[in-house]
Amino acid sequence: MTQQIRLNAFSMNCVGHISSGVWRIPGDQSYRYTDLDHWIDLAQTLERGLIDGLFIADVIGLYDVHGGNADQAFRSAAQVPVNDPLQIVPAMAAFTKHLGFGVTSSIAFEHPFPFARRMTTLDHLTKGRTGWNIVTSYLDSGARNLGQTRLLDHDNRYDVADEYLDVCYKLWEGSWEDDAVRRDAAANVFTDPAKVHEIRHEGKYFKVPGAHISEPSPQRTPVLYQAGASSRGRDFAAKHAESAFVAAPSKKLLKEYVTDLRRRAVAAGRRADDVLTFAQFTLVLGETDAAARNKLDLYKQYVDRDGALALMSGWTGVDLSKLDQDAPISELQGNAIQFTAKAFSSADPDKIWTVREIAEYAGIGGDGPVIVGSPATVADALQEWQADTGLDGFNLASITHPGTFRDVVDLLIPELQRRGAYKTAYAEGTLRDKLFGRGSKLPAYHHGASHRALAHKKEFA
Amino acid sequence: MTQQIRLNAFSMNCVGHISSGVWRIPGDQSYRYTDLDHWIDLAQTLERGLIDGLFIADVIGLYDVHGGNADQAFRSAAQVPVNDPLQIVPAMAAFTKHLGFGVTSSIAFEHPFPFARRMTTLDHLTKGRTGWNIVTSYLDSGARNLGQTRLLDHDNRYDVADEYLDVCYKLWEGSWEDDAVRRDAAANVFTDPAKVHEIRHEGKYFKVPGAHISEPSPQRTPVLYQAGASSRGRDFAAKHAESAFVAAPSKKLLKEYVTDLRRRAVAAGRRADDVLTFAQFTLVLGETDAAARNKLDLYKQYVDRDGALALMSGWTGVDLSKLDQDAPISELQGNAIQFTAKAFSSADPDKIWTVREIAEYAGIGGDGPVIVGSPATVADALQEWQADTGLDGFNLASITHPGTFRDVVDLLIPELQRRGAYKTAYAEGTLRDKLFGRGSKLPAYHHGASHRALAHKKEFA
Repeated sequence: MTQQIRLNAFSMNCVGHISSGVWRIPGDQSYRYTDLDHWIDLAQTLERGLIDGLFIADVIGLYDVHGGNADQAFRSAAQVPVNDPLQIVPAMAAFTKHLGFGVTSSIAFEHPFPFARRMTTLDHLTKGRTGWNIVTSYLDSGARNLGQTRLLDHDNRYDVADEYLDVCYKLWEGSWEDDAVRRDAAANVFTDPAKVHEIRHEGKYFKVPGAHISEPSPQRTPVLYQAGASSRGRDFAAKHAESAFVAAPSKKLLKEYVTDLRRRAVAAGRRADDVLTFAQFTLVLGETDAAARNKLDLYKQYVDRDGALALMSGWTGVDLSKLDQDAPISELQGNAIQFTAKAFSSADPDKIWTVREIAEYAGIGGDGPVIVGSPATVADALQEWQADTGLDGFNLASITHPGTFRDVVDLLIPELQRRGAYKTAYAEGTLRDKLFGRGSKLPAYHHGASHRALAHKKEFA
Repeated sequence: MTQQIRLNAFSMNCVGHISSGVWRIPGDQSYRYTDLDHWIDLAQTLERGLIDGLFIADVIGLYDVHGGNADQAFRSAAQVPVNDPLQIVPAMAAFTKHLGFGVTSSIAFEHPFPFARRMTTLDHLTKGRTGWNIVTSYLDSGARNLGQTRLLDHDNRYDVADEYLDVCYKLWEGSWEDDAVRRDAAANVFTDPAKVHEIRHEGKYFKVPGAHISEPSPQRTPVLYQAGASSRGRDFAAKHAESAFVAAPSKKLLKEYVTDLRRRAVAAGRRADDVLTFAQFTLVLGETDAAARNKLDLYKQYVDRDGALALMSGWTGVDLSKLDQDAPISELQGNAIQFTAKAFSSADPDKIWTVREIAEYAGIGGDGPVIVGSPATVADALQEWQADTGLDGFNLASITHPGTFRDVVDLLIPELQRRGAYKTAYAEGTLRDKLFGRGSKLPAYHHGASHRALAHKKEFA
């Protein structure tokens, strides 16, 4: 059987997400992100295309590394202004039946007790279509605004995240037994208090004595997304994540990532296919290759190189605007620069990249591949990338709104379906059911499931 | 001209809100609170009745004073399980055009920086129909779950709240100038960074150096709701609130509250009518008085006295279950008990109340009046209560879902309209426009508006 391609849509509750300057393309509607109809229309388009989920990125903070301030980010709408990703989901859920929703929330910005209730609420309201993209945050400005001097160092952040997850698992998996809610009018019992358990968590970073205040949602734990690229981040993903998102411009890096993550998942006691891998891709589709190339040419006229530099400076923590824009990047100093250089060299091994060229390249699609062509050309490419890397699917970013996703749904999906590489109907059930076909809950051998013992009073017996 | 009656609907994202045990009434659908359709249906009903707003209560914590644990609260569904109030609003907003939404959020459970973004987001998505019910929290169990030993003492909580509000005002009113967002494709400027200002807040409780990361929403500051009953709470309301909610069982107490709050508002430099006052009422409506009384008789069969005691014990902080249930409450000790005794004595001065009787009384409608009768009878009563107390309107709690609010809309509203005491169409504009008819923004002499100076660089000149 032809290998199935999974598709996620990647967006953000803001104007400019991955590509820079494209809000200026005539007719683009990205500025309508404050309007519910904008999102409802997107959700309906994606569901028409049987897209697995809409993954909504977020940052709390500004891209203020470039030039030492956020001026360029403001001018370029580089992920600012940016609104809460959570609140667009309930409206989209009311107009769809199958589309999943992956909401980004950082462990740095809300205590796990109220956060766990937010996710339980969303999983109820979406009838089990909720995912959580776990981030540990990378913008210092966000931390400063919460009264912290700066973010925790990188590895320590993952230690906090591990404990944060444990608090959430205890609340989601361990606090309420399946039959705690009786709704028995004759006995005058709505919830049986004997079946609701205090989690009594006392850790290094959090103390949470009480019970969850929400009844269990369809999935209990939302589908867990993660996008950590570092070694510590990969271990975290291997332990917790059910969908892992990666951005890298070459097959070589993506294959290495997929292979490594599966190895780590197995080392963590899970199955290699318990973590689905999605690579960030940007597609430019036309009826013909020429039409698609014409679109790309148009888009390139609007690329905002300074906006791309602002984003990349935030991602790497290095002020790329201060560098000689025409120097070969391989000659520049610093780990982040070297990483960037390695990534882009890998995309085109024969090319000697300058900072300017990388910014221009990244202006469309960031550090993920951009595939341009007719439905057949793009389908060929996706199938080839999948075969060569072992990826489960692609996390598709948009360039124009609503153009990019409409093209994916109207042009690409039918072509993939003709090839037998894409589903022709959604599976039934919750998001976790749809992705894995093994029920709505975490598998019993997932680390989070170990906290179910609470609900059986093993811990307090 | 006949005095206009304003109506809010009062609900909560849970099964049992103010009345106890009524989820057991045959056909009641309160248990469907996890379903978006439940809320969308409610919102459409309320908008059909030209109701000003839906006020959504919240607690983070359990009613665990009764008996020293939350067992009774669980059994009686006394505000547990309880889900996030915020997330039901975007779906309701997508299906309505005029209804306002007052979301409860405590200053104890989220840092003002991300919270301010949540409110800005909601005000965008509702096109300016957002209110915030500011609470300082009263359940210790919530605080313990966030790693705090207990809640701050009462007056100190209001000091924190004052500073929390100042951070929010600076972000909402002072950070972005009206024309900061240019969306000028030709000039390649989305936001003009010269018109976005860091708030540089350094206070006793919060340090927030940065700018708001969201662009201004239609109202900037959401309509501010408050329900503090203490002297310090009333001063807080007099300074900040635009709608004040009060629960008291008698005209005497309500009139005292309204008069006192207006006096305090004027002392705070505002107009007496800058704070609208709404009293919590519960209405039992039938085609005739006899039909309404039959409904009440049915409801009373389902009253859960223990559930009412659990709620009241949480509100007062006194374990009422430990008291002699048949002792006259005036003879019992403790400030909260005395307050309760005073309140109920005031409802019926000739009656000597026992704990048991108060719990039975409060089982329907809590500590607010319950009005029973035909549309004419209820309309008479509301007009009389309004004339005798100076209230602007009523905050209507429900007994059955969807019965109570459907009765209000189908039976009461037409009667009030016939009397010229109720609008026949919504006013245009945002929630603040609709309530005050003086524009979408806070009036210039409101304390929050003083922080607009930031955006004119007065502070940093």
